[in-house]
Amino acid sequence: MVSDNKPSTFPNSTRIYVPGSRPDLLVPMREVKLADTSRPGGASTPNESVRIYDTSGPWGDPAFHGDVELGLPGIRTPWVLERGDVEVVAGRELKPEDDGYLSWKHAETAQRATSRSRLVQFARGDRKIYKAKPGERPTQLAYAKKGIITPEMEYIAIRENLRLQAARSDIAPRRHDLNFQHAGHSFGAALPKEITPEFVREEVARGRAIIPANINHPELEPMIIGRNFLVKINTNIGNSAVASSIEEEVEKMRWSIKWGGDTLMDLSTGKNIHQTREWILRNCPVPVGTVPIYQALEKVNGRAEDLTWEIFRDTLIEQAEQGVDYFTIHAGVRLAFIPMTAHRVTGIVSRGGSILAKWCLSHHKENFLYTHWDDICDIMAAYDVSFSIGDGLRPGSIADANDEAQFAELKTQGDLTKRAWERGVQVMCEGPGHVPMHMIKENMDKQLEWCHEAPFYTLGPLTTDVAPGYDHITSAIGAAMIGWFGTAMLCYVTPKEHLGLPNKNDVREGVIAYKIAAHAADLAKGHPAAQIRDNALSKARFEFRWADQFALALDPERAQEYHDETLPQESAKTAHFCSMCGPNFCSMRISDDIRKFADAQGVTEDEALAKGMEEKSKEFREKGGEIYL
Amino acid sequence: MVSDNKPSTFPNSTRIYVPGSRPDLLVPMREVKLADTSRPGGASTPNESVRIYDTSGPWGDPAFHGDVELGLPGIRTPWVLERGDVEVVAGRELKPEDDGYLSWKHAETAQRATSRSRLVQFARGDRKIYKAKPGERPTQLAYAKKGIITPEMEYIAIRENLRLQAARSDIAPRRHDLNFQHAGHSFGAALPKEITPEFVREEVARGRAIIPANINHPELEPMIIGRNFLVKINTNIGNSAVASSIEEEVEKMRWSIKWGGDTLMDLSTGKNIHQTREWILRNCPVPVGTVPIYQALEKVNGRAEDLTWEIFRDTLIEQAEQGVDYFTIHAGVRLAFIPMTAHRVTGIVSRGGSILAKWCLSHHKENFLYTHWDDICDIMAAYDVSFSIGDGLRPGSIADANDEAQFAELKTQGDLTKRAWERGVQVMCEGPGHVPMHMIKENMDKQLEWCHEAPFYTLGPLTTDVAPGYDHITSAIGAAMIGWFGTAMLCYVTPKEHLGLPNKNDVREGVIAYKIAAHAADLAKGHPAAQIRDNALSKARFEFRWADQFALALDPERAQEYHDETLPQESAKTAHFCSMCGPNFCSMRISDDIRKFADAQGVTEDEALAKGMEEKSKEFREKGGEIYL
Repeated sequence: MVSDNKPSTFPNSTRIYVPGSRPDLLVPMREVKLADTSRPGGASTPNESVRIYDTSGPWGDPAFHGDVELGLPGIRTPWVLERGDVEVVAGRELKPEDDGYLSWKHAETAQRATSRSRLVQFARGDRKIYKAKPGERPTQLAYAKKGIITPEMEYIAIRENLRLQAARSDIAPRRHDLNFQHAGHSFGAALPKEITPEFVREEVARGRAIIPANINHPELEPMIIGRNFLVKINTNIGNSAVASSIEEEVEKMRWSIKWGGDTLMDLSTGKNIHQTREWILRNCPVPVGTVPIYQALEKVNGRAEDLTWEIFRDTLIEQAEQGVDYFTIHAGVRLAFIPMTAHRVTGIVSRGGSILAKWCLSHHKENFLYTHWDDICDIMAAYDVSFSIGDGLRPGSIADANDEAQFAELKTQGDLTKRAWERGVQVMCEGPGHVPMHMIKENMDKQLEWCHEAPFYTLGPLTTDVAPGYDHITSAIGAAMIGWFGTAMLCYVTPKEHLGLPNKNDVREGVIAYKIAAHAADLAKGHPAAQIRDNALSKARFEFRWADQFALALDPERAQEYHDETLPQESAKTAHFCSMCGPNFCSMRISDDIRKFADAQGVTEDEALAKGMEEKSKEFREKGGEIYL
Repeated sequence: MVSDNKPSTFPNSTRIYVPGSRPDLLVPMREVKLADTSRPGGASTPNESVRIYDTSGPWGDPAFHGDVELGLPGIRTPWVLERGDVEVVAGRELKPEDDGYLSWKHAETAQRATSRSRLVQFARGDRKIYKAKPGERPTQLAYAKKGIITPEMEYIAIRENLRLQAARSDIAPRRHDLNFQHAGHSFGAALPKEITPEFVREEVARGRAIIPANINHPELEPMIIGRNFLVKINTNIGNSAVASSIEEEVEKMRWSIKWGGDTLMDLSTGKNIHQTREWILRNCPVPVGTVPIYQALEKVNGRAEDLTWEIFRDTLIEQAEQGVDYFTIHAGVRLAFIPMTAHRVTGIVSRGGSILAKWCLSHHKENFLYTHWDDICDIMAAYDVSFSIGDGLRPGSIADANDEAQFAELKTQGDLTKRAWERGVQVMCEGPGHVPMHMIKENMDKQLEWCHEAPFYTLGPLTTDVAPGYDHITSAIGAAMIGWFGTAMLCYVTPKEHLGLPNKNDVREGVIAYKIAAHAADLAKGHPAAQIRDNALSKARFEFRWADQFALALDPERAQEYHDETLPQESAKTAHFCSMCGPNFCSMRISDDIRKFADAQGVTEDEALAKGMEEKSKEFREKGGEIYL
């Protein structure tokens, strides 16, 4: 494996584990230790550590000595087994076409042709495959409805509850009384002051949040997607016929979670789809999603019209047994909606949507994913795979936003949601694409209404079409807004969108742009814990604690690198200035003087000012050169 | 000069000039020629060229053979002179302290120490200095109020009117009936279908738009800042005590206007401020703004308390005679507001604001810019320098957003606006800083109300504090939103914000992020012409006209570079696929098939579909391999 096994850590940070109610429930966080604040006269006051939601899994723990060829430990296995509703099954037999080969002989030949053949087969031989016992539906939704608080739910309550984790927060959000009303509409639930396990259970039971967690993905660290929790981001990786390899994809996965990706979709096409996914799943601590129709299409050599329910069904089982946590299913692309796209500027831009549209037109039949919806639900319920109901007709340009085709599908997504819930399956709905700012809110409002508050999971939206090469930015604008309005998870877009496959740096740019959007949305929603990090970073900035500012940044490495470009000396890390204005021209510094001056007099009112400052101003001036510390 | 004199051009683009009513009124635009659309059977239909607002000035014209050491031609000189209200003056004598030297001897020694001394003195000896004749106020506002349509106003009407420039637009905005109501409040004026010279005059007369155009900056190509026009962006450059040189700053200026910067602020500090500005002004086709207090502070060796009205006044005249088009004046930082900042998380973060605050506290006197406001107005009116009333108390962190100090200053900005208008001076007001999304609109609403609809000019706002190194993104989110709400000009932020001085690449990243924000805002406001470019680009994308897609992009060079990373072959520029999905898996391609199929039948209704498609679907399937063109 080309990827190294070194942990990905950040400066001034410690991996801590917050314990839950049972010894095997330990929630990882990154604790950032901060320097003291220096006060005049040599005194100093301490700054509380800041605990940061950590998606990097064991790979972010310096004490973990794992190996990508062995995979991660299955922390959830005891939780899954102790519920007593699953059993070990033999599982579906692996077929050469799972990886795009006509026969085992072809597969062997292809593997011999590459020097890295030992990597192709993931070798953790003792992995068991679980499935619901007959009649059981081992889903988090079913448990929640029964009133059961699972270890997954407790884990999430601890994980989301960043404020309570801090021993004390002396700079608490100053405006935590602000609420969703600012988004211009009222939400179904008020944000709780504290995220309790019971609150998690309630939200899952109501279908307003999901916990994507396949019983065959025990490596997963549970997380939640719902609008009354932190806004999450999804990253996409995946090889294609044109470029990239398994090694690169596994490395991109680790890279994505290092920077904060909450879930990961493997959108591989071409050869070795099954094996790529196996490597990713066994090494991935975040939920993994796929679009099963991609692999099904490979099995019929790319001919959409040759797709059948049987091939698709077999693919669902194959992936569910591997441990995929959510499936994008484009069942809302109904035959009747396809002509609505004919006069669009950009037709159908979803890969899955276009495959299904082609199938429908070829057979003049209703979309087989729609007609087999209940069958699909039953398969997914048996492994607790969550739905991500696809938006195959999302707009691919500003001109096509919010049109008849898009909204016809959205309404169908709502109908399908209800049916899935009835069968115990967790659901989120996919949305947006290209939508100008003034048309974003309509998407959220209609989704809440039509899809019964199931979590919304949107691509961007991109707020203009004119910036290929910068679509992480065109879309971060829309993503932040729709996140504020209530979208639970934002699907990232990289700078390469529309142009090519993202490389590692593109993944980093895309993840950070989306962490910004998600965090900006959390702030605007008034999430009780969100502003702690902003306040701590701004206080560090104001006090010239450069190392603390870097450590608290979404991307500590880049922040330091940019700072050091002009002032590389170690002394500049504690200097009371930066390269922007130089040592004698610093507003932060002047401003600090002003504060000290005002503090010393205790004046905050105009009257006090008028009375007392005349005298003090003399003193202030007389001190002259001493004004700067 | 290290900068070359080559024009900065883009692919498939021609510099054209749209003529006005007089022979010396020629408005530059970039015309992008597009390839034909190929139709089945070898037929093709043409695509209209797209005309793009062009800020690059003569530097973007391949026919211009200028030289930065000679400066640009003074296209506005005849317009200024024929109005008969200005006269040539001797002008203020240049002093060694203008460039930060104690004496001419010091200046000479310093220049000898550098090998590039010939560059320091800009040598265009015949430049005359103009000033209002006694009793005259040669400002665009005064003309507008008198009912005069100046050549500048006509120039702007042509420049803003991109839609009319297109010979025809077959893909006109599909939703141009959308209006500002979407922003949640009604605006004073509806967007006109056509921007006429008279409309420009009216907006300027009402104070709702400004045309920054100093009579001593004849190199300027007139532009307008107002919320009923295209949203503009400002870029900041400037050397500092720590880094950079005159050459670099001039080159950054040309770089900024190449990418679309509408105005430019020279924020230099340290040595050679006067000469740096002279080089920039003589080569700059866009309005140049400054913060005169920076230079005044250098003249008193960085001691804010030593600033006097006389030194400041002299600096205003120095810069007005050079041709600076707008001054940031922090007159709203009143003595009584300063204690309001004492308990902020980040105090005062504006350099100008902190300098004035320090002066006020040292002397316990009201801000001398406030007390001398009318004097400042009279100086600025004599050269038509516009105000950019500073926001010295803008919030530097999420925690400080929309607080008492910020809004106290904003109200004062409104009072000062009225007084400036009474003296014939054009005004815009500066705003934001760090503001979370849900608090952005309040800024715009209050500014419209309190500042009597004078144009708002905002820094970002940055919607979170946690992403140093990516603040072009944190702020593009806020900038797009506030632009939609009605801000007329957005001050860019580069990735280096809070960390260091931007280099050329940072300037490019910052400009493009802000062009995105401004364009997204134009779309959301329903600007009649904004969507033409999106539609043309999306149509090119859908039809795999890669070269057209690149040429229409905000950054054609990066778009092509990213595409070519995976598919460098020339043939890939016309290929009906890209590296994202590869040749056999392309939704755009499948979607195109669907369109052809649906088009062929003329079906758009469910009924027609049910009746006619059964038969056609057979045909569609039988064609098999022919489905892809």
